[in-house]
Formats: sequence, C-alpha cells, structure tokens
Amino acid sequence: MAGKDDDVKVLGVVVSPFAIRVRIALNLKGVSYEYIEEDIFNKSELLLNSNPVHKKVPVLIHNGKPICESLVIVQYVDEAWAAAPSVLPADPYDRAVARFWAAYVDDKMFPGMAGVLFAATEEERAAKAEETLAAMAQLEKAFAECAGGKAFFGGDTIGYVDLALGSNLHWLEALRRMFDVALLDAGKTPLLAAWAERFVEAEAAKGVVPDAGVAVELGKKLQARAAAASTAA
Amino acid sequence: MAGKDDDVKVLGVVVSPFAIRVRIALNLKGVSYEYIEEDIFNKSELLLNSNPVHKKVPVLIHNGKPICESLVIVQYVDEAWAAAPSVLPADPYDRAVARFWAAYVDDKMFPGMAGVLFAATEEERAAKAEETLAAMAQLEKAFAECAGGKAFFGGDTIGYVDLALGSNLHWLEALRRMFDVALLDAGKTPLLAAWAERFVEAEAAKGVVPDAGVAVELGKKLQARAAAASTAA
Repeated sequence: MAGKDDDVKVLGVVVSPFAIRVRIALNLKGVSYEYIEEDIFNKSELLLNSNPVHKKVPVLIHNGKPICESLVIVQYVDEAWAAAPSVLPADPYDRAVARFWAAYVDDKMFPGMAGVLFAATEEERAAKAEETLAAMAQLEKAFAECAGGKAFFGGDTIGYVDLALGSNLHWLEALRRMFDVALLDAGKTPLLAAWAERFVEAEAAKGVVPDAGVAVELGKKLQARAAAASTAA
Repeated sequence: MAGKDDDVKVLGVVVSPFAIRVRIALNLKGVSYEYIEEDIFNKSELLLNSNPVHKKVPVLIHNGKPICESLVIVQYVDEAWAAAPSVLPADPYDRAVARFWAAYVDDKMFPGMAGVLFAATEEERAAKAEETLAAMAQLEKAFAECAGGKAFFGGDTIGYVDLALGSNLHWLEALRRMFDVALLDAGKTPLLAAWAERFVEAEAAKGVVPDAGVAVELGKKLQARAAAASTAA
C-alpha cells in the first residue's frame, strides 16, 4: 500500500498548525518526505492545482495523488502506513473519543485563538480570550480522561488529539507575546501546561513546531491586512 | 466488539440532518436501535448528560457509552459493526476522498443552506443561495468522480458522502417551498438531482428522511426565534 520508496511531498506553511500536524504524523510513522514551503500571499501553481477546492495548505502528495484537509491527511497517513505505530487508538470507542476532541480543537479552540488575533476591539479580544480559555479548560478535563496518567492524550506516545492540539502551541505563545493574554496557563490548566512541554520535546515534533517569534511576525502581517481590508470595506 | 444483543439508542430530532445520517448508517449495518426524539427547545437530562460539551443531537448511546458528533458517530458505527457492509471504502486514498467531501458538506453546503433560512434581508438570502449553489456544483463534480457511473458516491450502495449529503435533502426542498429558491436543480446539477431520488428511495433511508413539510414547520419556528433574538439584541 505504502512503501519505503514512495514519493511523499507536503505543501505547508511553517507556522500553520494544520501543516505542522501532518509533518509530525509523518515523523511518527518514520516516513521520509519533501517539505515545500508555500507563500500564503502568493500561492504556487502546485498548491492551487493540488487543492482546487479550498486552495489551502496543507496538501500531502503521495505518489502524485493529493490529499487535503489536515485531519483527513493525518488519518490517511495512519491508514496508508498502517504497519508503523498507529496515531489513532485501535478500539472503536477510543477512536471516536479521539476524533471528537480533535474536532473540538478545530471547532472551538482554534477559532477562539484566531479571534484573539483578529479582534477589532480590546473588548472583543477579551471575549475571544475567554472563549479560548473555556476551550482549554474542556481540553484539560479531556486530557485527564484520555491520558489516564500517561504522558499524552494518545498514551505513552503522541496520538491524534496530541497532533491536533500540539500543532497550535506556538500560536498560544505568540498571542501571549503580542497581547499579554495567558491562554496556556499552568495555574488554570496545569496538566496541559506540563503536556505542552513534553509535546514540543518529543522526537517527532522537534524542529517542526516553530519558535513563537515566527508566528508573531506572521500574526502582525495578518492583523494589518485584516485591519486594512475592514477599513476598505 | 458489537453484537446482536447490544443496547443501542439514538437521541435525535426528526429533521436534523446530523441525526438522520446516524440512523441511516445504523440501518445500513442492520443494527436495531431505539430512537428517542428530543425537543430542541427543552432538552432532556439524558441529552445534556450524554453530550455535556455540545449539548446537541445526535448522540449514539451504545451499551451505555455516549458517542457524539454525527460524522464521528457514523465512523464509529462503521468500525464497531465492522462485519456488516462498510460505509467508508477500504482503500486509504478513497477513504480520504470520502472524508474530504463529507467535511465539505458540513463546512460549505450546510452553512450556505442555514444562511438561506436565517438571512436578515433578501439580498443576504440571495447571496447565501448562491453560496449553496456553488457548493452543490462542486458536489456534482465530486459525484461524477466518486461514483464513476454508479448509483451513489459510495458505489452501488449508500456510503459516507451519501449519508453526509443525503441527510440534508428535506431541507433543500423546505427552502424551496419557503423562499422559492431551487438549490437542487435538475438543470444545474442533473447528476445530484437523479442521485437524490435514488437516495430517498433506498431501503435504509426510507422513513428516515422526513417530509419537507416537517422541516418547513420547524424552519419557520427557528426563523421567528432568530428574528426575535436579533430584535432583542
């Protein structure tokens, strides 16, 4: 199905949580791949042709076939390289729980975080920070239930929920630096704070989760563009 | 893993696309279940306790364990009753394609449709109808690629994308009756129009996809509530 000599490419953006989770999943599986950095302000023909529907990173191109949408890709990686240690648990109920929380990260935690970045007023920013913190509190409870005293949501190694959430850590730190909001707070979510340290130190994540400074830089650019667009509108 | 004597309950709302797809998935698998209708304006303790995070239908309760989020549930059903014909294809790439399009239905087609219902002005309603039609045009292309001349996205039988999209058909018809917008148009998307007729006639879907009149009734209630809330705000 998938072999050692496969041609594997990832189109990504270095600070994109969605691209980061795909890269770490491939690392967990021991799959070699070519990483191609995209310019989100000037997308390549390869990206536009590979993901004509959404025109977004990440795209995994496996022996010429494109696969899009980060959680779809992570599940594809898990299934195509099935012989390597699995990202999702084996039991159907545990798989459902993992899929539930990964979707929760994308539906609740990420939009809260993006809302902090793009808020038009300080009041709106505070409200979005509250939303993000409420999501983090839910995830703290989920961690206690899923990990059962182990290091990761996935148990002893990084799993599906770890990928979904861990790929956002540099943005949490970037938002702290930009707006002085503590969204990952050892006082409020001690389990997640300790988990985050383990996540970035894990072999598969090293060198993939970028320094928050890079996110701050892009964050400022995106914020300026959004503000200009709203003034023009 | 899952057997004949299992206790299976579905908490749903008769017009909810998300509950409908779960019920049809169970029918496809030949699983007997107790269906419990929820009142969305007065949710039961069982619902609130079973889905404390989102407090939404559908919830599948399998031998006392709750599973939430419709596409998570459908995948759970596929994996827990693995011996019955599968909902998702076997090949990892085909599975990724199916997951991509099911997510597309929920991310693009459904919000367009909901936008038509809740639009505050006729101009906004027309824009949302355009969005929905654009999504339907994408899905028409997807159907041609996925079905390859067969009856369903899933081939000869209803599969994952069929469930995701087919569970919305009564709402498309309800919006036509309410606002005279043709969102499923045999002129524009002939393949989908013919597919829709096959879908509602399929054994597993019969009696589950409700008459559009029921959706019109709830649609009017929801619209009135949304208007009242926006006047109060």
